[in-house]
Amino acid sequence: MSRWQPNARERLAGAALELFVEQGFASTTVPEITARAGLTTRTFFRHFADKREVLFDSEDSLPALASRIIADAPAELSPIQVITGGLDTVASVQFSGDIAHFRTRRAVIHADEGLRERELRKMSALSEAISHGFQERGLDELRATLIAHVTATVFSVAIGRWLDEDKPAAISELLHDTLAVLRSVMDEPHPDGPTRKLVPAPARTD
Amino acid sequence: MSRWQPNARERLAGAALELFVEQGFASTTVPEITARAGLTTRTFFRHFADKREVLFDSEDSLPALASRIIADAPAELSPIQVITGGLDTVASVQFSGDIAHFRTRRAVIHADEGLRERELRKMSALSEAISHGFQERGLDELRATLIAHVTATVFSVAIGRWLDEDKPAAISELLHDTLAVLRSVMDEPHPDGPTRKLVPAPARTD
Repeated sequence: MSRWQPNARERLAGAALELFVEQGFASTTVPEITARAGLTTRTFFRHFADKREVLFDSEDSLPALASRIIADAPAELSPIQVITGGLDTVASVQFSGDIAHFRTRRAVIHADEGLRERELRKMSALSEAISHGFQERGLDELRATLIAHVTATVFSVAIGRWLDEDKPAAISELLHDTLAVLRSVMDEPHPDGPTRKLVPAPARTD
Repeated sequence: MSRWQPNARERLAGAALELFVEQGFASTTVPEITARAGLTTRTFFRHFADKREVLFDSEDSLPALASRIIADAPAELSPIQVITGGLDTVASVQFSGDIAHFRTRRAVIHADEGLRERELRKMSALSEAISHGFQERGLDELRATLIAHVTATVFSVAIGRWLDEDKPAAISELLHDTLAVLRSVMDEPHPDGPTRKLVPAPARTD
């Protein structure tokens, strides 16, 4: 029999998530995961450094993907155009799997303080990669940092919408919509007023 | 002699920061801090729950301050106007102390992974307070969440600029400038083009 196990990675990840939900992340052991998956502990450690990596495996590749998108974007695009253009690529590469998997994963992370902090750090790493990418394109550090933070916000909020809604739109649509809503809320002098003015309201004299 | 120690809180915070810089956060004990400050351990625990609280003491009051500002803002102001109006209040209440103190504090936090994660959580708590405040004013959850994230970004970036620069402008000025730059970078179709258009550039046909 070949040592290579078809879908071993997916089977391990699936078994791990089931167990994290059933008995909590902290009290689940690697041998329990491999028993559930019908695989050996040795196979587990060929795929994952530890049980936490099962949860952050796909998120770990986001910074590198973002760096590539920014480096490859045509030089004449503004930062916000680069971001807008990259959303579809990220959506198709990163969020193509079953939504139930992502929902379960989020529930597990939210139930554990250590995992929540780790997720914030991962978002922070994405942000740093984006900032660095734009500085490589010649953007000043301040603008690069700000666009990076905003992009990380758009990501986490759009993913939250995708996971929350009963019949969610496609993730790429939610990413674009979230960015559009963010731009409108930043640009809005008054909910009932015109939305394209950025001039501050005059000081009140009454 | 009175049990009340003049400036005990400040003396303890100052001594703690000195020791954290000299020997690291992890290896500094509360008795060392109180010895340096010339005060008792008992006095320390009247002011701080533990040595970590010395670092996050002032940040802990930010969410409540933000909630008050949002609740008290005139109903006719848009979210971005409420935020703009609140920046000066936060600057004067929260960042009125010696800049050297804030610089040292940042260096200590950045040197310790646990403290960095804690700081991200604190920013997240600020963000939640802002989002909740705007939802109380009737804003939908999506817009409230986005404006909250953006405000937290403006804060952390403006504070970073204040601490980084040799002769920094006033923190309130940096807060306003950071918000303005963020709005311009979100709104910019091209670095060399007009900055007030939000219409997407036409698709390239070449």
